[in-house]
Amino acid sequence: MTDVAAMLNAYPAHREVIDDDALVLCIQQSLACAQACDACADACLAAPDVSHLAEAASAARVAADLAVTNARVLSRLTGFDAEVARTVVKACEVACRSCFLATRRHGLEYEHCHICAEACRRCAGACRRLLAGLT
Amino acid sequence: MTDVAAMLNAYPAHREVIDDDALVLCIQQSLACAQACDACADACLAAPDVSHLAEAASAARVAADLAVTNARVLSRLTGFDAEVARTVVKACEVACRSCFLATRRHGLEYEHCHICAEACRRCAGACRRLLAGLT
Amino acid sequence: MTDVAAMLNAYPAHREVIDDDALVLCIQQSLACAQACDACADACLAAPDVSHLAEAASAARVAADLAVTNARVLSRLTGFDAEVARTVVKACEVACRSCFLATRRHGLEYEHCHICAEACRRCAGACRRLLAGLT
Amino acid sequence: MTDVAAMLNAYPAHREVIDDDALVLCIQQSLACAQACDACADACLAAPDVSHLAEAASAARVAADLAVTNARVLSRLTGFDAEVARTVVKACEVACRSCFLATRRHGLEYEHCHICAEACRRCAGACRRLLAGLT
Repeated sequence: MTDVAAMLNAYPAHREVIDDDALVLCIQQSLACAQACDACADACLAAPDVSHLAEAASAARVAADLAVTNARVLSRLTGFDAEVARTVVKACEVACRSCFLATRRHGLEYEHCHICAEACRRCAGACRRLLAGLT
Repeated sequence: MTDVAAMLNAYPAHREVIDDDALVLCIQQSLACAQACDACADACLAAPDVSHLAEAASAARVAADLAVTNARVLSRLTGFDAEVARTVVKACEVACRSCFLATRRHGLEYEHCHICAEACRRCAGACRRLLAGLT
Repeated sequence: MTDVAAMLNAYPAHREVIDDDALVLCIQQSLACAQACDACADACLAAPDVSHLAEAASAARVAADLAVTNARVLSRLTGFDAEVARTVVKACEVACRSCFLATRRHGLEYEHCHICAEACRRCAGACRRLLAGLT
Repeated sequence: MTDVAAMLNAYPAHREVIDDDALVLCIQQSLACAQACDACADACLAAPDVSHLAEAASAARVAADLAVTNARVLSRLTGFDAEVARTVVKACEVACRSCFLATRRHGLEYEHCHICAEACRRCAGACRRLLAGLT
């Protein structure tokens, strides 16, 4: 769906050596996770027992913001600062893990929480894989 | 890549009748466009003749912000306000069209501008298709 | 609190003639509105009768996203495209108006809805003032 | 300018004990910093020797995204997760420090870089003060 890998290859200057596959995957999973989290927080608000879903909705709002920011920051290579990248990816990983724990509890009753938890799990995994190579 | 359609189907309440295919496509194209625009603005900064690309980079920054916002707003259905949706999709369409014009000029020399222009063209098209059904 | 006016004066190139006071005010009100809306959507989730506040929380989420985007886009002058600016400011104005209507209803019971409605009212007003000069 | 403190006081439920003054200041400085960074990245694109400012513009783009995200995440208290908050504030602090170093170099020639560096310095300081109390 996205042109992440093509844009990476089109970068016109010498650039920091990163694990390209891990980078592309992390950006893609972050975009997918952000969308799922945004939609899940919204679906929680429409659920009959929204008061039980307040924590899940809150965690999803935060994970959505972090996943969007992670995808955007990782899409830029000029003046790449590995320390900045590491802390951003780390923050995204922690927020996704927190949202995973908050939404999977409701996964049996709410399909949107199940999908969101899975998207967060995949995104957190992609963040950890990228972090392993960001020395 | 994304769970856009699955999340739409998991929405737990009665919801506004929208053209679901057009909605899913618009969200997906907005996410892809945002990423391409973010990366293109960054690649412009690394180009040897960045001064000639300043306008393209600026247009890409704006289109990236609008495309992200469009994807996020369209991912939410609770309390759906058609007038709000229309103006957001319209703003995204205009920003993508503006970025398309600014980047396609450099498409022959810069692959990242070519990819960005194409992503903007597709996103603007998906916005127009969605707008046609948002009465 | 912000350096909006100082940054405007520090812009190093010839730029589009806009009503500077209206521009600075619109950026400042958008930032304040975004923060109030983000906090209000969160406070709604913590309220005892959150199910009655679902629409207010949803409207506040959308207005927060639009207000942030408006402030960011208006902070950029390079390659300024008046049509883009107009549609973004318009989308922000409509989203703030929608949130104002959704939150002021709860203003007597919930202080956070009252503050949010006021912030939206001021932001929508600043948007209209800026729009009047964006020909 | 903002209603940050008023919104904090209007939160309708028992909430995590945080240093409220440090929280309010960090949100306000993050909003101000985001605006200054967004405007500085744009002003860099309009400067006659933009190629020398590419790194400053890139650092400002990243710091703007992190500062916005920081302000938004910190504006929410429901389901507050101290580990998430710490990593987000840390990422903002690191990005602001990186942008401070990249922009202050150009502070003598470019007023917008000077203002941006100062906003980043204040924001990073507010982040460190908040972090000290987020145990």
